[in-house]
Amino acid sequence: MRILVLGAAGMVGRKLCERLLRDGRLGKSDITKLTMHDVVEPKKPEKAGFAVETVSGDFAVLGAAEKLIAGRPDVIFHLAAIVSGEAELDFDKGYRINLDGTRMLLDAVRLAGGGYKPRVVFTSSIAVFGAPFPDAIGDEFFHTPLLSYGTQKAIGELLLADYSRRGFLDGIGIRLPTICIRPGLPNKAASGFFSSILREPLAGKEVVLPVSEDVRHWHATPRSAVGFLLHAGTMDLAAVGPRRNLTMPGLSATVGEQIAALRRVAGDKVAARIKREPDPFIVGIVGGWPRNFNPKRALELGFTTAEKSFDDIIRIHIEDELGGSFVA
Amino acid sequence: MRILVLGAAGMVGRKLCERLLRDGRLGKSDITKLTMHDVVEPKKPEKAGFAVETVSGDFAVLGAAEKLIAGRPDVIFHLAAIVSGEAELDFDKGYRINLDGTRMLLDAVRLAGGGYKPRVVFTSSIAVFGAPFPDAIGDEFFHTPLLSYGTQKAIGELLLADYSRRGFLDGIGIRLPTICIRPGLPNKAASGFFSSILREPLAGKEVVLPVSEDVRHWHATPRSAVGFLLHAGTMDLAAVGPRRNLTMPGLSATVGEQIAALRRVAGDKVAARIKREPDPFIVGIVGGWPRNFNPKRALELGFTTAEKSFDDIIRIHIEDELGGSFVA
Repeated sequence: MRILVLGAAGMVGRKLCERLLRDGRLGKSDITKLTMHDVVEPKKPEKAGFAVETVSGDFAVLGAAEKLIAGRPDVIFHLAAIVSGEAELDFDKGYRINLDGTRMLLDAVRLAGGGYKPRVVFTSSIAVFGAPFPDAIGDEFFHTPLLSYGTQKAIGELLLADYSRRGFLDGIGIRLPTICIRPGLPNKAASGFFSSILREPLAGKEVVLPVSEDVRHWHATPRSAVGFLLHAGTMDLAAVGPRRNLTMPGLSATVGEQIAALRRVAGDKVAARIKREPDPFIVGIVGGWPRNFNPKRALELGFTTAEKSFDDIIRIHIEDELGGSFVA
Repeated sequence: MRILVLGAAGMVGRKLCERLLRDGRLGKSDITKLTMHDVVEPKKPEKAGFAVETVSGDFAVLGAAEKLIAGRPDVIFHLAAIVSGEAELDFDKGYRINLDGTRMLLDAVRLAGGGYKPRVVFTSSIAVFGAPFPDAIGDEFFHTPLLSYGTQKAIGELLLADYSRRGFLDGIGIRLPTICIRPGLPNKAASGFFSSILREPLAGKEVVLPVSEDVRHWHATPRSAVGFLLHAGTMDLAAVGPRRNLTMPGLSATVGEQIAALRRVAGDKVAARIKREPDPFIVGIVGGWPRNFNPKRALELGFTTAEKSFDDIIRIHIEDELGGSFVA
């Protein structure tokens, strides 16, 4: 089985590739080749049980998608995107990468010929939804994004479903919860604080909380995200039918509940490293975001999270990212 | 006030222009110029109380949209589209006109500069919805189109909302019901029978009904469609907020109810011109179509139909298209 990962240098992409390298297989199929693509060259893994190719470049330019699929990957994980904050600040760049890039990829597959019909796993986002919301957003709630990023993802979902219905590819779109705790350095996503208010204190650093503690949001660990992707890459899509885009399971928690969990898992001293400094720009963006979901269909279709509580989310970060310890 | 109508040679576009020519104004503003555009040259009206320009050409080629908006129309009615059957048969053409053309128009407005921010009225379609449906589709039901046409309209809606939210234009999208009674010659569209089973008998001709009488669908007259467009062109959009796309009101009726209305309005002899010849192909297609809506928001926002019953729908056709009489 040949696998292509777009956005392989991103946080989730990197973790997905690490897992594929570790497993050596996807579902029941041995991996024979993994192509890791990103706008910056993904770090080549030191050891691999199969061929690994790293490719860098802009995938939203003429001919780029055709080259990427020239080796006819059986499964394409499309994680490449301009994140929400940047897509809001740079209108043209967001549409060029998130809409045109996605469409060029789907069109390259459509026009490849020779009966080529790969599995395409598209990472969408809960940003396809826009306030006001019901208490828990159900699977049939409409998409009225309040960010260009969410608009671009909603369009990607529509294209994926239509191209799948037409038989050009076998697509499945998964709306990832906000990933928490996101490891590494802060990125340009407006949602960054949901992770940094936990990650930085655990590393002994002070951090700014830019919103109030009653902000509620929808979270899943990087470990869960990788699990969703692997399931999406292998599941039977006949059971999914024409509605190809699914909200993934997650945990709904307020910022206050996040901090309480941090206090329980790591102690008062760690939690005291959070400084409250409201930022009207972030407050404005986050005010329109979903708080809670009822992801019935995804659960029925076998998508599951690795965590049962926010304490688990913090523990998984300490285990997966910090080698089991934190700065008390 | 300067007005641009894209798709001015189509049935609804033509009727909209006739109404604008008759009224001489849109809302409280006198019309100073009307530009009628279509891929075929729209028929130039014989007399007009203001400047009328007719333009033909493909609006989805580089530079075309910029030319169309060079006169800075205050209101743009965007009705241009490849219809559902053709968009399904010709994938590239449907996406090029319905998606790329719409985006090029919105981008031309966005990049026009000088504070240009016109009202853009976009005609969407109930084809953005895909079966299975609830009994009556509410305003918050999600979009899972089962045709490329519906996919392209759903994408147009998303773009319109995002460009409006960004302040590039003042957009409003309206999902028209199936237009009944559609004037003109019978065509081979799968939905054609909803109109032809009434129109042809009223013209003294026999007609084939290809589905059973219990098929239920969502209808509005051409007169109502024009009313929706005029209201969308003049209403206060501040009250609409960021959710810019609305299902228009209509009448839900079964084919049996349509025929009963024909019998009441025009008599048994006219209704007897309908011949029942079920066509499994049409039956299959129509099975996936919406049957009924609850268009609460549009009603609250002042959209109203010209008809209260299917009898009215037939009477309006006799009045507007047949000069008040039919072949008894």
